[in-house]
Amino acid sequence: MMDKIDNYSINTGDKRSPLKNIIEQIIAQRIWSKEILLKKGDFLKMEDTIDTNLYLVEEGSLRFYISDDHEEKTIRFGYGGDLVAALDSFITSSKSPLNIQSIRKTKLKLIRKSDFTDLILKNQKLKNAWEQILGILLLECMEREIDILTKSPLERYKRVLARSPRLFQEIQHKYIASYLNMTPETLSRISKS
Amino acid sequence: MMDKIDNYSINTGDKRSPLKNIIEQIIAQRIWSKEILLKKGDFLKMEDTIDTNLYLVEEGSLRFYISDDHEEKTIRFGYGGDLVAALDSFITSSKSPLNIQSIRKTKLKLIRKSDFTDLILKNQKLKNAWEQILGILLLECMEREIDILTKSPLERYKRVLARSPRLFQEIQHKYIASYLNMTPETLSRISKS
Repeated sequence: MMDKIDNYSINTGDKRSPLKNIIEQIIAQRIWSKEILLKKGDFLKMEDTIDTNLYLVEEGSLRFYISDDHEEKTIRFGYGGDLVAALDSFITSSKSPLNIQSIRKTKLKLIRKSDFTDLILKNQKLKNAWEQILGILLLECMEREIDILTKSPLERYKRVLARSPRLFQEIQHKYIASYLNMTPETLSRISKS
Repeated sequence: MMDKIDNYSINTGDKRSPLKNIIEQIIAQRIWSKEILLKKGDFLKMEDTIDTNLYLVEEGSLRFYISDDHEEKTIRFGYGGDLVAALDSFITSSKSPLNIQSIRKTKLKLIRKSDFTDLILKNQKLKNAWEQILGILLLECMEREIDILTKSPLERYKRVLARSPRLFQEIQHKYIASYLNMTPETLSRISKS
């Protein structure tokens, strides 16, 4: 859910990205509680459950989706090197409609919200990095909102391709189509043209 | 853009909302640069411009929209008492596709980003409040993403009505329809049933 953070340049006075700063400290201080191995198709979170953990994706890929009228709508992906979470549940500590599913063999480190909060509170630089990350996630969400509202499938495709080339390298065609809110057939037609 | 913040309860240990804390300090410390009076239909910001200011809405209403293939898509509203901004431009200090238009006579106080940042940096409580607000805005954006992806117009209407009753009290029918991504005719049919 925090992919593509490097693409935004926020004036930090620090050449490293805020996300890299935080991941480095998670690793240096070993604040994860356990490691999780998911087979392709396994669920990390099901809809209408609470999950306040963060996950550091060591390898593999995840997709985040919601169900609407029996249709699965993919809304985010997590890649190797990302820090991901069901952000709505993480922020509110309440149930969320998100499903998080492994779409290939995936290795994760689980970080409890309380351990993450402790890490951030001890270090003003990390607290600032987290604030920057929230801003970046907000920007990404606003970009995503405009993506979905863009009527032309070709324009939607172009917007997302420009912003998220990794998506097209790592994710299966059917999930890209779901993310772009179009049928796999429409995506095939567009990507060949 | 920061309406409805009271609807989310984040564990703050403070009964007042983070937004109220910040607005009180903006007023107490008089950090606005000028007051702006907009007639109905005036633009506060046009697309493809930079606007890094925050605005405290004293009275009136604003709508935020993007243009897609000559169609205006309304994505947010600002009401009296709100603190609003073209958040993408505010965060990145770059151009943004947002238009901000007054939809009735509107009175605003303009707060420069630098003055706002100074205010926040001087006070750890306000800095924490701002971090909470970013989290709330992110939640709202995720809710909005799910709204738009919800296929049934009736379900979209119900979701938004439950979350934003003020929308239906203060905003003109045609803009509510645009926000709900449906025609005014569909909205009329649904809201009568």
